[in-house]
Amino acid sequence: MIGERKVICVDMDEVIADALGEHLSRYNRDFNASLTAEELKGQWLSDYVPVEQQATVIDYLHSEDFFAVLQVLPDAQRVLRRLQDRYEVYIATAAMQVPNSFSAKFKWLEKHFPFISPSRIVFCGDKSILRGDYLIDDNPRQLRLFRGEGILFTAPANLEVTGFRRVDNWLDVERMFLS
Amino acid sequence: MIGERKVICVDMDEVIADALGEHLSRYNRDFNASLTAEELKGQWLSDYVPVEQQATVIDYLHSEDFFAVLQVLPDAQRVLRRLQDRYEVYIATAAMQVPNSFSAKFKWLEKHFPFISPSRIVFCGDKSILRGDYLIDDNPRQLRLFRGEGILFTAPANLEVTGFRRVDNWLDVERMFLS
Repeated sequence: MIGERKVICVDMDEVIADALGEHLSRYNRDFNASLTAEELKGQWLSDYVPVEQQATVIDYLHSEDFFAVLQVLPDAQRVLRRLQDRYEVYIATAAMQVPNSFSAKFKWLEKHFPFISPSRIVFCGDKSILRGDYLIDDNPRQLRLFRGEGILFTAPANLEVTGFRRVDNWLDVERMFLS
Repeated sequence: MIGERKVICVDMDEVIADALGEHLSRYNRDFNASLTAEELKGQWLSDYVPVEQQATVIDYLHSEDFFAVLQVLPDAQRVLRRLQDRYEVYIATAAMQVPNSFSAKFKWLEKHFPFISPSRIVFCGDKSILRGDYLIDDNPRQLRLFRGEGILFTAPANLEVTGFRRVDNWLDVERMFLS
């Protein structure tokens, strides 16, 4: 349809929600450590920590309250609100990997992004099912599955990844889509 | 991509899960009635019943156990399994209207359709976001939003609807896609 607005799909974890920050905070509390995101360069926390700590770290994701307490990444609210004026914006998260996260993720979005309609929220597995022009995601596997243009949102685990336009933060998103 | 398999999206309620049957069963129990699907022709149960009963009927959907106990519609398992041999099959349900249904719907699919990977399950609001060739759904509003071909699955509330290819049951789906 001529003049139809473009569709932007936006991932949750590490893109609008600081899941890594909460992972680190729990890890540092449980193991009396002071690990930072910078030290992880290119690795998931569960791959970085000693093998005897891995089960604990993986369990963070499955705790009922994990998703409820995540911080919002800087400028995500303001820029997403602005994007809605010019694009059809959907939040698309691969929630099927952690089925007990559904309610917490939904409530988190209601709390921090009340201006996004529930009809624009998608819990999926494989992001190839999304009909969108752009997907902003930190996960290169999902970006490759997606059929529109994948935009890589920088996270410690993807610093070495190439082949996508990259944004480091929401100010970069704002420049890319709204300037 | 030449030779790529077509994508079929399949709705849950009234297409693979007998939500209406459970609605009627609860209604008949609570109001000592013997209402059947046939008597509803063209109306939702909540529109059909006297106004003083509407709140009760609408609340059925929000009860924690509603989705857990739904029956599977005849032939849905066998035909969906066969469809997977020739198509990319996704289950796509508008779960965002009833956020406390997420877990029950996921568990119901695990129980009755264990051969469908969690990566092929989508909880969405508006089905315009699905990138699929076909959507099999009983809701004409969702079929109009969808960008592929909408296939109307017969339910009492859609008997008068035209403008779509129609299937009355899973044997019809089998004939349409597998013969």
